[in-house]
Formats: sequence, C-alpha cells, structure tokens
Amino acid sequence: MFRTHNCGQLRISNVGETVTLAGWIQYNRNLGGLTFIDLRDRFGITQLALNMETNPELTAQANQFGREYVIQATGVVTERSSKNKNNPTGDIEINVTELVLLNKSEIPPFTIEENTDGGEELRMKYRYLDLRRKPLQNNLILRHQLLQATRRYMSDNEFLEIETPFLIKSTPEGARDYVVPSRLHENQFYALPQSPQLFKQILMVGGYDRYFQIVKCFRDEDLRADRQPEFTQLDLEMSFIEQEDILVYIEGLVQYLFKEVKDVNLPPIIRMSYNDAMANYGSDKPDLRFDLKINYLNNLIDSATEFAPFKETLELPNGKIAGINIPNGAAMSRKQIDAYTDFVKEPHRGLKGLIWVKWNEDETITSSAAKFFEEGILKSWLNHFGASKGDMLLIGSGPKSKIEKSLGDLRLKIADDLNLKDKNKFAPLWVTDFPMFEWDEDKQIFNFMHHPFTSPRKEDMDKLLSDKGNVYAYAYDFVINGSEVGGGSIRIHNADIQAKVFEALGMTDEEAKDKFGFLLEALSFGAPPHGGLAFGFDRLCTIMCGVDSIRDVMAFPKNNAARDLMLDAPGTIDAAQRKELGL
Amino acid sequence: MFRTHNCGQLRISNVGETVTLAGWIQYNRNLGGLTFIDLRDRFGITQLALNMETNPELTAQANQFGREYVIQATGVVTERSSKNKNNPTGDIEINVTELVLLNKSEIPPFTIEENTDGGEELRMKYRYLDLRRKPLQNNLILRHQLLQATRRYMSDNEFLEIETPFLIKSTPEGARDYVVPSRLHENQFYALPQSPQLFKQILMVGGYDRYFQIVKCFRDEDLRADRQPEFTQLDLEMSFIEQEDILVYIEGLVQYLFKEVKDVNLPPIIRMSYNDAMANYGSDKPDLRFDLKINYLNNLIDSATEFAPFKETLELPNGKIAGINIPNGAAMSRKQIDAYTDFVKEPHRGLKGLIWVKWNEDETITSSAAKFFEEGILKSWLNHFGASKGDMLLIGSGPKSKIEKSLGDLRLKIADDLNLKDKNKFAPLWVTDFPMFEWDEDKQIFNFMHHPFTSPRKEDMDKLLSDKGNVYAYAYDFVINGSEVGGGSIRIHNADIQAKVFEALGMTDEEAKDKFGFLLEALSFGAPPHGGLAFGFDRLCTIMCGVDSIRDVMAFPKNNAARDLMLDAPGTIDAAQRKELGL
Repeated sequence: MFRTHNCGQLRISNVGETVTLAGWIQYNRNLGGLTFIDLRDRFGITQLALNMETNPELTAQANQFGREYVIQATGVVTERSSKNKNNPTGDIEINVTELVLLNKSEIPPFTIEENTDGGEELRMKYRYLDLRRKPLQNNLILRHQLLQATRRYMSDNEFLEIETPFLIKSTPEGARDYVVPSRLHENQFYALPQSPQLFKQILMVGGYDRYFQIVKCFRDEDLRADRQPEFTQLDLEMSFIEQEDILVYIEGLVQYLFKEVKDVNLPPIIRMSYNDAMANYGSDKPDLRFDLKINYLNNLIDSATEFAPFKETLELPNGKIAGINIPNGAAMSRKQIDAYTDFVKEPHRGLKGLIWVKWNEDETITSSAAKFFEEGILKSWLNHFGASKGDMLLIGSGPKSKIEKSLGDLRLKIADDLNLKDKNKFAPLWVTDFPMFEWDEDKQIFNFMHHPFTSPRKEDMDKLLSDKGNVYAYAYDFVINGSEVGGGSIRIHNADIQAKVFEALGMTDEEAKDKFGFLLEALSFGAPPHGGLAFGFDRLCTIMCGVDSIRDVMAFPKNNAARDLMLDAPGTIDAAQRKELGL
Repeated sequence: MFRTHNCGQLRISNVGETVTLAGWIQYNRNLGGLTFIDLRDRFGITQLALNMETNPELTAQANQFGREYVIQATGVVTERSSKNKNNPTGDIEINVTELVLLNKSEIPPFTIEENTDGGEELRMKYRYLDLRRKPLQNNLILRHQLLQATRRYMSDNEFLEIETPFLIKSTPEGARDYVVPSRLHENQFYALPQSPQLFKQILMVGGYDRYFQIVKCFRDEDLRADRQPEFTQLDLEMSFIEQEDILVYIEGLVQYLFKEVKDVNLPPIIRMSYNDAMANYGSDKPDLRFDLKINYLNNLIDSATEFAPFKETLELPNGKIAGINIPNGAAMSRKQIDAYTDFVKEPHRGLKGLIWVKWNEDETITSSAAKFFEEGILKSWLNHFGASKGDMLLIGSGPKSKIEKSLGDLRLKIADDLNLKDKNKFAPLWVTDFPMFEWDEDKQIFNFMHHPFTSPRKEDMDKLLSDKGNVYAYAYDFVINGSEVGGGSIRIHNADIQAKVFEALGMTDEEAKDKFGFLLEALSFGAPPHGGLAFGFDRLCTIMCGVDSIRDVMAFPKNNAARDLMLDAPGTIDAAQRKELGL
C-alpha cells in the first residue's frame, strides 16, 4: 500500500501521528521559506508543509513538482495555525519528512478545477483529466450510490436480477438497431438490444415472477443533446399484478432513492390521465414544478363573436380557445409578448397568433383584443383563470392539437424566462391511460404508441379493429420535472389478443410469425398476467445531480456524431477481418 | 394483485384464513371424488383440494385443467390429513371455493421436472419452459444472490461502480473482436469490448482510486463447452496499491461470497508461483481438491542407467523423470495402465511411454521396469513419493514441457477416474509470478502472456529487451478447483516503461501510437501506480452451483454455433439497412 490514509481522512485527532499519503498535486505554493502543497485524491485534499530552513533538500525537491504530479509524502500530522473551515482536513497539515515522486505529469490542456476553461470536445478527448474535476466526480459517485440503492430496493422486494443477452435478433421497436455481423453464419447479423423487452416477458413466462436489471441499451439514432447511442436502463417486470400494483412499487422505489441518495422527501406522486395532461399542460410529460396551467375559454365566448379567430375556432369540430395566466405578467413589454407570439406561430406549432389581457397594477384591464370584448368579458376571463392584479393572460385559438402543442411549449418557455425550473425541487407524477394507437399523418396509418406488447384496456378490447382511435392502453409513464423518466405497461399475456393487436397494426400473420413467432409461441404455453416498466437511469441521474446533459453523468460519453473522442472510435478494421465477416 | 400469498408461503399457522393463490399447475390428480392440484410458482408448491360431492361444478372445471395451465384459486387454508414433510407448505392445503383460468397451455414438448426428458437443443428453443425447471431456477437465484453480495462487498470497501462503454475501438487483446458497423461514419466500425481493461486504467488515471463493475464482455471465438460469445466479468481496479494488497482484498471478497451465498468457510487461500504450479501439478491452474502431486526422480537415477528412456532424458538440457503416486493403485489392471500410457502418448502430449511401480498388498514390489532397476531402487522411489502399501507409481520421462503437460493432464484424468473431484469441496489458491512473455513456437516470437499493460517485476526491468524469457510479471490468477476464475496484474503506470514493453513485443512506435496512443498519453498526465483483476463471473457461478457448463448459470445462452435457438439469431437484415450501413 502506498499510503496509510487517504487525502480526506485526517483530523485534529490524528495530530502527532506519522502518516503516508499519496495523490495528485492540486496546488504547489512556494512562499520563499515555506512550501505548501495541496495533495488531492478522490477522498479529499490535505495540505503538505515543507520548510526550507529545517529541510532544505526536500523543500527544493518539492518546488520542482508541477500540477498533477503524483507523489507520496510521509510526515507528521500537525495542527495548522491558520485553519481552513471549508475543508474537512483543514485543521491539520502534514509536516513532510519524506517525498517520493511516483509519476510526473505534462501540463494539462485545461485547468482541473470546479469551473474549467476547457471546451467540451477538448475535455472529451482528455476525458481522464476531465474526470478528475470535482463536479464530474460528484456526479459519478452519486450514480454509484443510486446503482447500489436501486438494486437493494429491488432485491429486498424479491425481484431477481437476471442478465439478458446483448447479441440478439433485430426486431423493430421504433428506432434503428445497431447490428453485429456474424462470422460463423454468413450474411447474418445479431442486433444489440434496444431494450430487453421480450426477454423480460419470456422470464415471466418462465415463472421468475419478479425480474430486474440495470442494463445497457442501444439505439442508432441521430443524436440530440440528451441522447446517447448507448444508455442505461433500469428494467423490471412483475407477474400476477395489475397496473396499480406496479405504480405502488415504483413509487416506493423512487421515494426510497431520493431519500437514500439525496435525503429528499418527495411530495406525493400524483396520477394524471394522458388526456388531462395534454389538455392542462399541453404535454404528456408535464413539468409540475410550476403552475402556468392551460385554461379553456370555449364556454365563455359567444359563438357570434365578431373576433374572427375565435369565431372560426368555435366552428371547428375540435376547436379550442385557451391560454395561460402569467403571474405578474402585466409588466411585460410589448417586445416580450411579440416574441411569445412569434414562438407559437413557428410552423411546427402553427397558431395564428396570441391575444393578451392585462390586469394592470392601476386596476385597469387592457387587452390587444379590447376592440372586440368589453371589460366585463375580459374580467370574466381573468376570473376564470384565477388571475390576480398584475397578471397577464396570453390566449390563442385553433385546433385542439395545435393549441396543446403551442401552449404546452409556451408554458415551458415562460417558465424558463421566469426562472421557475428550480433544480432543487422535484415534481413527480404518473401519466396514465395512454391511447393504444397513434395516427401517423405521413403514412396515414395507426401505429403503436408504446409498443405492440402493451395490453389494451379490458373495456376497449372490442374496438381493436373497428375504432382504433378510441382504444386506450394499460400504459403509464413516470415523469419528473418535465422529463419522462420511466415508461411501462401491462403486457398482453394471451396469444390470441397479441395476434389481434399485430393485425390491428397492419401486420400479416406471416410477418407477425417471422418477427415475433417465439413470443406468440411462448404465450401459448401458460403465460401469466404480467407487466413492467423501464426507467431511464441516465436521465434519473441528471435530475438528481441537477445537470442538463446525460454526458455529465456518464464516465465515457460519445459526442453528437456518436464518436468517442478519447479512443477515436469508431475506426477502420483490417481487410482480413472484413473478409472473415463477409463484408 | 392476483394473489394474497405466493405458493411457498402458507403454513399451519394460516389455517382458517381465506387466501388467493396464482400459479402453474404442476400436477392435477383426479381421484374420483377428490381432485388435488399442485399449484407452483417461483416460491414453492401448494396443494389445492376440490371435492366433487360438496362442489361438483368447480371440481368438474378443475378436472379440465392440464399441466402448466395458469390459474387463480381462492379458498380456505385447511390442515392436511396426510402431511408432506418434504414440502414447506406440506402441512396445509387450500379448500378451493373459487377458480379462475388465467391462461391455457399447450402440452410442453418436454417434462418440466427436476430431471427432464428434453435434449439440450429442444430445451434451448423453448428456454422459457426449461427455465421453469427447479435446477435452473435455483442456479439463477444463486446467481442473483452472488451479484448482490459481490456489489455489497465492493461498495462497502469504497470501490465505485462505474459503467464503461460497449461501443469502443477494436484493439487486439488476444481474441477476435465483435464489430459494429457505424452508420454515421462510412467504412468505420465500433468493437464490442473483450474487457474494460483500458477504461479501468483510464479511471485510475482519472483519480477514481477504486473501481468495479459486473459487466458483459464479448469474444468472437470458436466455442467450446465452457465458452460463450458473451460472458460476464467482475472487473476491478485499485490505485496506490501493490500486488499483495489486491490479493488480500480479493481473498476477503471470495471468502465473503462463499459464506454469504453458500454458508461455506473457505480454507486458507494459499499462494503458489507459476513455476511451482507447473512443476508440481503440470498446470497453471492446479486443482487442489486432491493430491496426486508430480514428483521428480532425476536425482535418484544413475546417469549411467541402462534404461534408455531415462538415460536419454538425463542427457537433455531440461529433461525430467517424474511421476505420480496413485493411492491404492496397485490393484489397477493392465488394461487401465495401458489406457493411461496411451493417454500421455497422444501427440499433443507427446511422452514416449510410462513405467509403473506397484507396492503390492503382499508387500512385494513389482514394476514394468524391473529388468532395469533393483527392488531397493524401486523401493527408494516409492519412499521418495511418500507411497504406502497398495499404491502405484506411474513414471514418465522427457523434456520438461512435455512432462508437465502430460503428467498434469494425467493427474486430472486419474482424479476423474477415482472420483476425486468433489463438487462440495472448494480448493482456492493464487498462482503468482507469471512469466511476462510466452514463446510462440509457430511465429517464433515472444508474445505477452497476460496483456501488454502488465508490469514486469522491478528486478526484471533491465531484461525487457535482452532476456525476455526470464522476465516475470506482477501477474496473478485466482484458481478454484482447477478453474482459472480470476486473473489480474499490477499495471504499468509509467509511459516510458509502457513504450518499452510495446517495443519488446515487436510493435513499432507508429503501431503503438495508433493502437494505444491515448493510453500512452494518459500515462503521461500523472498516472498513479495501480493494478486490478477480472473475475469470470459465470465460471464462479458454475463452481458455486456445482454444474459443469456455464450454460446452466445463464438465462439465455447460445449454442456451440453461437446461435440463440429461441430467437433464431443471428438472422438476416433487410437491404435498406445494409445499404444504410454501407455493407
């Protein structure tokens, strides 16, 4: 062992002991007669002291050491004259009597401190240096704790951790598979799993009752800031349960994790139907850290109104007039309101405009639509929204889907602008009762919304082929702070119903057999009722760490072009290997 | 919830309670008036009782249910008249008042019992049915416990679990890589990791001090019974330690695991040098559950002996005359001895023959070489081997390497024949001081024995380029019952030494930079002294479960042609996908 203690361990009670430490030089300050070195390891920083007068050779040696040099120092623990209250070891220092240089270091290409001067690409290339920085280290330590606590909870609740394979068969689950050419079977490929979905169902058929795994999954997608080609999932499945049972178990898990890892008592985890979430927050993953709820005015507007946008909307089969109340928004500038208006008019949102209604501090009510609506009407709207003096309503109109999309996005934008997304606040909820199918405008077909193994609700079973738009599923998402962290469903355990759902998705018998034959077969050998969930582990980490990107909670992330900049991967392979693989 | 209790839970103290169970029908016995169903789940088996007289409809329904049907039964817990002491629930049965058929089952293609009639291929195709069998279930439950206990120990000892990536760069580590074509980077490939070796070293450079992970690794090898294309490894690494520190930590781990999971107190874990292991057991992974040690006779043989094989051997630079004492072997038949002789003469072993020396029960000493050696000489050999009356020596001669290989293999064969490989006995040891390089006869070059990041011993550093055959490494293997379960080393932490080892392996500067440039660079930024180990997790499971094949401790293994028979993977991919990948 190169040390008797680590750099975060020594206290005033150790004074007088001879100790040996090893670590990296964070700072090396030569104050003429005295030299102080801050020695750093994962556990903390301890100050080393050397005196030119009493120990000239050693001090001269120490003065040669640069930042990030690795050294071993032996000496006596001594009480400091000027203590550092911000450092747990700040009461003491080591009076060094022996120094060993264990390794030199080149000058790092960026500073290894809380806030570094290195750009992201540079820090990814020298990831081992970036990993030395405290913020990243804290994130990875939290992740470690979260991993242990998660497995402890699952194991304590009789879930079995069972490893599922990585070299599997390519199956369509919504995203593109990564594939692995087989050397032994010409022109054949394995696929890397997008999730262990089918294996966990197979494990339920196999009688394992409760399964979990924290496992890597793979999706060959074009990347965004919060996506990575490989990511980690907490995957679980239970038999002989109904939806409510799973929700309760997961609530217990999440509450346990926040308490164990962050000492946070989560607020009660509410349930909200998909339809309510869309109507009230314009999102199936509403951020409930703040209100800014969408309110509807349809019933307060005279269908004979002269205000054309509203009149037209009321004539639509599914037209909505709705808005958001911005607390203290009456003070907002014309420029800011115009920016919001432009925002909802962007083509992918598609509203035609917004009107505003201000309840000013001087008690007057002003509005961009004052020509069309009397003050009494405007006042009734303000009341309907529960507005107070100083508030402002922003109101739009149009087809339901555009209203939900636009006002949902606007809500988040306003929250950003008003700094309402508090990273120390956690607002968890379940979104339930998702539609079974989703209309694909481009292809003009119904697609599955969750995945094709999700069970329709009992009461909707007879609409499977006749009225797909009104079939709802036993599907549920776990949402925290506007992030969909988990998603799951009760699965189909009956082979006939599974075949019917494949049919509803437009699959021929042959296709269904080719792609999912083994599943249909498995369901015919006594599959129990079962359901489960997958939790985005990286995403949960970001929320707990209070960071924005999942790169900040992964040791070795890839960049937006799916490259590992440290390894310089992917790379070429030699001709012999290509030939062997038949490529 | 479909049940109030599981099928392993009810006891005599529950008598009188109304309960609901759910599970699979193991047996359904219609005894005329009475019907008994054994209902099974992961937790146990509970007997359901139905009476045709008191409950004709329900009983008639129950009589329709076949094996592996999934049912839900409600009823009153009743004390049994004839108790089953072999079943924890055997004191009670459920007097059924309500039955729900949850799912039917086809007739399984093999019996789902302890000993099944299904062949391995059939059982792999219907893995979900095979997984219902108790022996497989017990193995997977033990594996679950082992996973939890391992992480508990590591975490309690301040190791951090850190996930390393799966899409990495192809690097030569002895075996063939599985590769993954990149869609975004034409003609480029990721590789799946053969181990996270370089990442864990990078984590040490990053200051993480102690790392561990239980992680899947991949090798595209031609398969044998105990190999799988993907396997699980306990991977760990420590900083600021020396070899002895790691050995002690791992001993603690293994002792903890055997105690926790099997309630076994392991014997003390001995240390043996590679050279001693080869000389005494003819193997670098000696099975110490039994003795059958190799003994050497060189010093007892007159160099002028007329026995040609020995004479020739003594003239070789590295010739050895050696044998094994078989307790009670004097009774062995000529046929058996001939079989052993043929065994060591097989071409890949290459001995020319064996002589035998028997110390018979009637006190006579007989030998196939009696013509050449007097009884007194033969007696001295028997004494040298520590033989007793009734024992037999088998002795061969030849070059050291052939003697070690042949007698090492012979030792294992004899142990098999004498039933000395007791599955309930555990004999762990460390094999240490491995040679740094291994002579490749085919290519006539020195290759690395462990991997090229292994540190040579301090005292051998100057022989790196001049005397490769005599360079030893800080490398160590953990062996139990003749299986190499773990292997590790102290790593090179100095960039100059690493470059020199690459040179010793015949790599040019350019090759070294191309393959391991980032490692050499990382080592130049203050790498700490470090070392670690990788543990074959599947292999450890087989030893603890007392099974021979790692397939029996994996939920979804592949067959010898690397196929998943349930999924029928690998498979073809469509033309569009191939095109997108540039294949």
